[in-house]
Amino acid sequence: MKALAVDLGGSHASIALVEEQRILAKEELALDAAEGLVNVLPLFADAFRRLTNLCGTRISDCAGIAISSCGLIDSKAGKFLSTNGKWDDALTLDLPAWGRETFGLELRIENDARMALLGEWYAGAAQNFTEVVMVTLGTGIGGAAMIGGKLLRGKHSQAGNLGGHIPVLFTGRKCMCGAYGCAEAEAGGWSMPLVARESSGFASSALAREPELNFEALFRNAAAGDQVACEVRDRCIRVWAATAVGLVHSFDPEVVVFGGGVMRSADVILPCIQSYVAEHAWTPWGKVKVAAARLGNDAGLLGAIPLLTNQN
Amino acid sequence: MKALAVDLGGSHASIALVEEQRILAKEELALDAAEGLVNVLPLFADAFRRLTNLCGTRISDCAGIAISSCGLIDSKAGKFLSTNGKWDDALTLDLPAWGRETFGLELRIENDARMALLGEWYAGAAQNFTEVVMVTLGTGIGGAAMIGGKLLRGKHSQAGNLGGHIPVLFTGRKCMCGAYGCAEAEAGGWSMPLVARESSGFASSALAREPELNFEALFRNAAAGDQVACEVRDRCIRVWAATAVGLVHSFDPEVVVFGGGVMRSADVILPCIQSYVAEHAWTPWGKVKVAAARLGNDAGLLGAIPLLTNQN
Repeated sequence: MKALAVDLGGSHASIALVEEQRILAKEELALDAAEGLVNVLPLFADAFRRLTNLCGTRISDCAGIAISSCGLIDSKAGKFLSTNGKWDDALTLDLPAWGRETFGLELRIENDARMALLGEWYAGAAQNFTEVVMVTLGTGIGGAAMIGGKLLRGKHSQAGNLGGHIPVLFTGRKCMCGAYGCAEAEAGGWSMPLVARESSGFASSALAREPELNFEALFRNAAAGDQVACEVRDRCIRVWAATAVGLVHSFDPEVVVFGGGVMRSADVILPCIQSYVAEHAWTPWGKVKVAAARLGNDAGLLGAIPLLTNQN
Repeated sequence: MKALAVDLGGSHASIALVEEQRILAKEELALDAAEGLVNVLPLFADAFRRLTNLCGTRISDCAGIAISSCGLIDSKAGKFLSTNGKWDDALTLDLPAWGRETFGLELRIENDARMALLGEWYAGAAQNFTEVVMVTLGTGIGGAAMIGGKLLRGKHSQAGNLGGHIPVLFTGRKCMCGAYGCAEAEAGGWSMPLVARESSGFASSALAREPELNFEALFRNAAAGDQVACEVRDRCIRVWAATAVGLVHSFDPEVVVFGGGVMRSADVILPCIQSYVAEHAWTPWGKVKVAAARLGNDAGLLGAIPLLTNQN
């Protein structure tokens, strides 16, 4: 079975033709969210045509179109519920109708953390599990949960999706979401520099001389022995580990998969989270596996087939 | 439809004959957990006979027997998975077989927080909702979640059941469960006195003169204006409110029901949690209701019919 897949970011989209667990061909498009999603749909259509031509297949041979995007999404209704300031016109679009009318294909949309979970479940780190939690560490922290082989969605599509917004420090920082001390507000890509700058000794730390203070810079300086960098890095890992314990206690998974760019430092991060979860999560049935995502940016694209085949 | 219901505590059991949303008759039994559950089953049987005689009905007219208990329970298999040091022989008992062989009745067991949720859903504060989170504030903090009108259980029966064990202060106290800074470790009945005694000014506070420092004493002294009591009370409420936000973000409920003895002070607690959740939970679909349990200790008994009719 083949499908067309779109992974929509704020300023970029990956478009792919996938077949089962493989990506047959892929294109990257630079986009301007200010143009509105309605104006980039024709670019997607052009890419679909190029990709299928390239692979000697036809769009009508595809089982459907799957779009992964950030934002809160009602996948069954095919509607965006909240877009957080990017692609705001998506709230008014009937994307399934566009797919049907333009290509005669079923079109489904789903949140990017859920699509990453589906991809890792279908073709990556969560293969052969039915109980899965996904955490995506990026500028924000995304989450998704699968129970009994089905994505957990809930009535308003929020269930399992806000793993980065469970307070781990109720006395902590205000989060973008409105709560205090969410994992994302304590150890997300946007909050980490705020935490670091409040550390004692920051001004004399190597971090203060970084042109851009991001996770890459944090882990590089920590590896080089900078003390403030080590402290901030270890605090981030502790927040992620405590979040994993909370998600294990919430959703009863057998595996927790961590994805996102910072997992390039999985050699440092993963053993810490694994041992923390093994020691501090209460799972009388056995040990939860903690794994790094295996598919990188392709996870959302490879979630296309399971999304479209209504296994989920 | 009638059913026999047991709410099993550590040193006590309530036994009832229920009919739909009503308790027809009820008995309280004092028990000694050291005797083992196997030795108190005949006491339950005697109570079933007295209650049905009293109401002029027969045991065989009942749809089944429902047992609510603390501990981790696989309700579908009819097995205790973990008992936390009380009724440890329950792990080895085949209670469904006892019900079948002694009375010819189906017997189901379920965790007490889940039974409280079922009861409140069937006959109390969560009637007419399908998306429900229950939090029971006691010596420990229990939790349960319902999604789409079905109890959330998960593969190892832990899903939704550990709402009191989601870290809200990752730098906090060690919990009985092994994690750090769980709601239960920061604002449960067993941990509150530890928190209070560490407060500055405790020695000169009215709390220090209480023969037993429990929630009743805390709220009474706070109401009388004792400053340390007010601070500790407000911190407890903040922990419970942050826990509610985390549970809303996890399980996407329409109503969060708080139960337990401390809810005798619902007039103080509920408005605080309601406004905190309204302000800090991210629910673009609308406002989550925060409610006090309505059925008190009868909730677990009134969960009998929905448990037995396999709606759950």
